[in-house]
Amino acid sequence: MAKEDLTVVKIGGNVIDNEKMLEKFLADFSKIKGKKVLVHGGGKLASQMSKRLGIEPKMHNGRRITDKATLEVVTMVYAGWVNKRVAAKLQALEENALGLSGADINAILSAKRPANPIDFGFVGDVEKVNAEGLGKLLDSDFLPVLCAITHDGNGTLLNTNADTIASETAIGLSELYETTLVYCFEKNGVLKDPEDDDSWISTIDTKIYKELLADGTISAGMMPKMENCYHALGKGVKEVKIMHANNLLSISEGSFVGTRIGL
Amino acid sequence: MAKEDLTVVKIGGNVIDNEKMLEKFLADFSKIKGKKVLVHGGGKLASQMSKRLGIEPKMHNGRRITDKATLEVVTMVYAGWVNKRVAAKLQALEENALGLSGADINAILSAKRPANPIDFGFVGDVEKVNAEGLGKLLDSDFLPVLCAITHDGNGTLLNTNADTIASETAIGLSELYETTLVYCFEKNGVLKDPEDDDSWISTIDTKIYKELLADGTISAGMMPKMENCYHALGKGVKEVKIMHANNLLSISEGSFVGTRIGL
Repeated sequence: MAKEDLTVVKIGGNVIDNEKMLEKFLADFSKIKGKKVLVHGGGKLASQMSKRLGIEPKMHNGRRITDKATLEVVTMVYAGWVNKRVAAKLQALEENALGLSGADINAILSAKRPANPIDFGFVGDVEKVNAEGLGKLLDSDFLPVLCAITHDGNGTLLNTNADTIASETAIGLSELYETTLVYCFEKNGVLKDPEDDDSWISTIDTKIYKELLADGTISAGMMPKMENCYHALGKGVKEVKIMHANNLLSISEGSFVGTRIGL
Repeated sequence: MAKEDLTVVKIGGNVIDNEKMLEKFLADFSKIKGKKVLVHGGGKLASQMSKRLGIEPKMHNGRRITDKATLEVVTMVYAGWVNKRVAAKLQALEENALGLSGADINAILSAKRPANPIDFGFVGDVEKVNAEGLGKLLDSDFLPVLCAITHDGNGTLLNTNADTIASETAIGLSELYETTLVYCFEKNGVLKDPEDDDSWISTIDTKIYKELLADGTISAGMMPKMENCYHALGKGVKEVKIMHANNLLSISEGSFVGTRIGL
């Protein structure tokens, strides 16, 4: 029997931080047909809350160093304020959202990152996605909304990269569903010219990917995202899309605006 | 067919606020057999976080006045830091916990309390428990952990009394399960002499309840809890127990320490 379609969508901080953008995005998201999972970050709000509490945010290569006080902040902001507001707004759109951290139903088990060479503190790298558990929720017609908090299985919460949560969740669920992974961000896709937002590349396959890497079109900032995409494609995800959050509706309209990535 | 047993346990702030007490409590809770739901508050931690953010907690008759800034605080603390820590700790005890606010799966729909005579702000009174949705989670062997945040169905989160969430959830689920409601607090039960913690009354029925009300044994502080109990009993809950959090295990040991309340 053919597997049912599933769309895993990741939204970043720029959408989360702006109430109007968030509401437009969620309205569009609610119109996507079929089974869905939403993954969100919220880094900007966490940094603001840190500062209000007198905890100066510390970053290393764009990743947050998460001491105990910062773990409390990110858990409050991601799993509390952001996740529950998103759940409530989706419910108002008649989507049966269910906000989750990785601790809930043991959705995402991760391992605390070793303290060498850089001690990131309470930061986790994904070890295992509970596809069976998430599948039960999807079968019950609930819409999982995952935040970027996971756990180590021994009672400790861990701050985890939301892009990775999205790709690992898509990989895990591709056993059960024909899965598409969609990364929404603030550009129209992978751009030929980073200065020109209209220069997005409509399709990338492995051959084109290698050329874009060789000629330097894929910038240092884009590299980890692209690696995530090819990791997911190599492990069973059918297709990855990178696109502007404002264009989300185009994925179900046959006039897709963004970059389609395949093997 | 006989309905399966379900135990709905509510823990208050005194347990939540103390890491050691919380861990002992959760270890005991994990030993209760059969289907379970946990409901928690967290008011003391919310007041501490309010103060750290420079928001002076405002209470009226023991209930929190919840302006917009306070709604953010209680959502962060209850649905974020407390709920996810409890979920992670229960997972470590091999209980398949699933932390929920009332917005998740539309578990608890509430109505914003009218601004007259007292404007409590973003405070909700429970309108409807989604017993069918919670039943699906229980059928999937997930253990719902409910915090004291609900929603109005139109995208707004609301701060809601945890005792009421516990009783309304027990009532809703009594359609599907033979439901016992357990209130854990920092006393051994309903006390004959409030100064003597060993003076708990082992059983209260409607006749004894009326006598205790008439002779003033049930104090003003205990009155709303007892009203909640009889409301629940009148609407299908089989039994209510009021007990010290430290004695939780006694409910499954045949040597119950606390007050049993029935019709």
